Amino acid sequence: MEGISLEELQLAARNHGMPLEALRYPVTPVGLHYLLIHFDVPDVDVDEWRLTVRGEQELTLDLDDLKQRPRLELAVTMECAGNGRAWLDPRPTSQPWLLEAVGTARWGGTPLRPLLEEAGWGKGAVEVLFTGLDRGIDGGIEQSYERALSLEEALRDEVLLAYEMNGAPLPPQHGFPLRLVVPGWYGMTSVKWLSEIDVLDEPFDGYQQAQAYRMRQEEDEEGTPVERIVPRSLFVPPGIPEFLSRDRHAEAGEHVIEGRAWSGLAPIASVEFSTDDGSTWQPAELDPQEGRWAWRGWRYRWQAEPGSYVLCSRARDEGGNEQPLDPPWNLGGYSNNAVQTVNVTVSD
Amino acid sequence: MEGISLEELQLAARNHGMPLEALRYPVTPVGLHYLLIHFDVPDVDVDEWRLTVRGEQELTLDLDDLKQRPRLELAVTMECAGNGRAWLDPRPTSQPWLLEAVGTARWGGTPLRPLLEEAGWGKGAVEVLFTGLDRGIDGGIEQSYERALSLEEALRDEVLLAYEMNGAPLPPQHGFPLRLVVPGWYGMTSVKWLSEIDVLDEPFDGYQQAQAYRMRQEEDEEGTPVERIVPRSLFVPPGIPEFLSRDRHAEAGEHVIEGRAWSGLAPIASVEFSTDDGSTWQPAELDPQEGRWAWRGWRYRWQAEPGSYVLCSRARDEGGNEQPLDPPWNLGGYSNNAVQTVNVTVSD
Repeated sequence: MEGISLEELQLAARNHGMPLEALRYPVTPVGLHYLLIHFDVPDVDVDEWRLTVRGEQELTLDLDDLKQRPRLELAVTMECAGNGRAWLDPRPTSQPWLLEAVGTARWGGTPLRPLLEEAGWGKGAVEVLFTGLDRGIDGGIEQSYERALSLEEALRDEVLLAYEMNGAPLPPQHGFPLRLVVPGWYGMTSVKWLSEIDVLDEPFDGYQQAQAYRMRQEEDEEGTPVERIVPRSLFVPPGIPEFLSRDRHAEAGEHVIEGRAWSGLAPIASVEFSTDDGSTWQPAELDPQEGRWAWRGWRYRWQAEPGSYVLCSRARDEGGNEQPLDPPWNLGGYSNNAVQTVNVTVSD
Repeated sequence: MEGISLEELQLAARNHGMPLEALRYPVTPVGLHYLLIHFDVPDVDVDEWRLTVRGEQELTLDLDDLKQRPRLELAVTMECAGNGRAWLDPRPTSQPWLLEAVGTARWGGTPLRPLLEEAGWGKGAVEVLFTGLDRGIDGGIEQSYERALSLEEALRDEVLLAYEMNGAPLPPQHGFPLRLVVPGWYGMTSVKWLSEIDVLDEPFDGYQQAQAYRMRQEEDEEGTPVERIVPRSLFVPPGIPEFLSRDRHAEAGEHVIEGRAWSGLAPIASVEFSTDDGSTWQPAELDPQEGRWAWRGWRYRWQAEPGSYVLCSRARDEGGNEQPLDPPWNLGGYSNNAVQTVNVTVSD
């Protein structure tokens, strides 16, 4: 791996992944869930804060108004579109994620659809734009963080305006007082510190939609938008770590490897496990699926004999999408779901 | 800066700093407080968990026993001894902290001293050893994470066995169900996932005490132990950030720069602010000190005119200890409290 630059390190020191041993929790505790904040965590005075929704009419709501609306709580696995970026060669310069940019929370709030229906939309409506209070410069353009969804996606029943995470008010870093949660999509879609929702008659062409988060090989390509999460599986590394290398050391005998797998494209169909760096694969045992939008648990009983191993797992979804062994390259470093590998030395 | 290695990046992706805008909170929200975990977050079953204290007699306590003891809550600023390491040249290989390895929490629990007094100690007692449940390999040695304090330090009134952080049970990553909190000392002393406390008749010579966390210039030096936090000040960067460089862009006019300063050696005496990279300094205004062990707020009213600036701040404590402009080098990369610099472009 070519050395990480100061700019990349500054991002890595601010934003953080989920340590892989936290895969043991079906719902990720606050502070272990991954975070990617483009600009700064804004300083929001909740008494002053309002959500403005502009469709055929304009609605203005405070947090109490939102809490009095129908309530929906969903466990949702969220992953950063840049997860896996640091393994690409050459490495696109941005947040240098390895594998850990994921987490699952119980997001509590109110569904978006009834609110949009109340605001209404005309025949020409095509998209819904979500604007956050976080502001900065990206790609040379000063901007509030903004992303749009097609009207069809925005009207899905499970799209949520969340004011709670794991049963408590949103922490500042996860979007207090309100954020969008779009199950199945990469995290950039789930706009934090939400302040405005606008029904649009034309596709949104702001920076985070038209420039960033597109799959392309060359700068001047239009590319295709990054949207739904492609399948991935990760597992709790067995044994104990070496501080610096994070290589693992385990004792001989049975190790029950526990992991989780998810896909925004279709439900998880299978997970396979390998102890020889992907040369041979064995089926893992799947836990029941606990709701479509949260990761699915799995386990593999490994009879470990003394020696050196490279452990890895590979998920496939019901759409036939499967994790590759080698990462496909793209300019922005998105959607790299190549299999995780973990080096383990087993001793007597 | 020479490129960061994969090993350093792996640590940076697991452990995280406090984004500097979070300096606005006198008590750092959970998930924004810095984290440094040497090995893995252990999986603790609180029903099985016990604290064993071995002095002249052996005490065994569960979490309810601890909660029934006298209660103490203290706001404590904690900082990693490796904060600032990544600025050193050559850079010691470990967690590559820039500036953000700090946070302040309200730690709630029971004072250590009465528990030690109950266990008792003999005439020969010199140190108290604290053992955590986190286990791994460091410096080639398999170990539980362990650190000792002199008996005198361990008996300070403000040394705490904490089972709460900011009014809630400790999160897993901060040491659930119980951790040590030693106000004024770098974080490595405040052992997480505490399981054993042993009064020792001889100085502890385990890896984290005798090898790591010592100030030395050469490998074969004995060096001096890293203990109390040297003074540092940090501030909320004004204006808005550029995503990648984190350089700031602000409008002309008055900016009230808000910062915090702390020292484990003595109370903060003064903070100075510079807009020209430390060539000239102006006094900042100090907030009242809210208790000895939490950082002290300060502010500086900056009349910003169009141009380019390098902002920095420098704290001095009542012991006369002051932040240097250039980082002093040492082999482990500890205690680098050189002044923070922030690049700002001010436009009309």
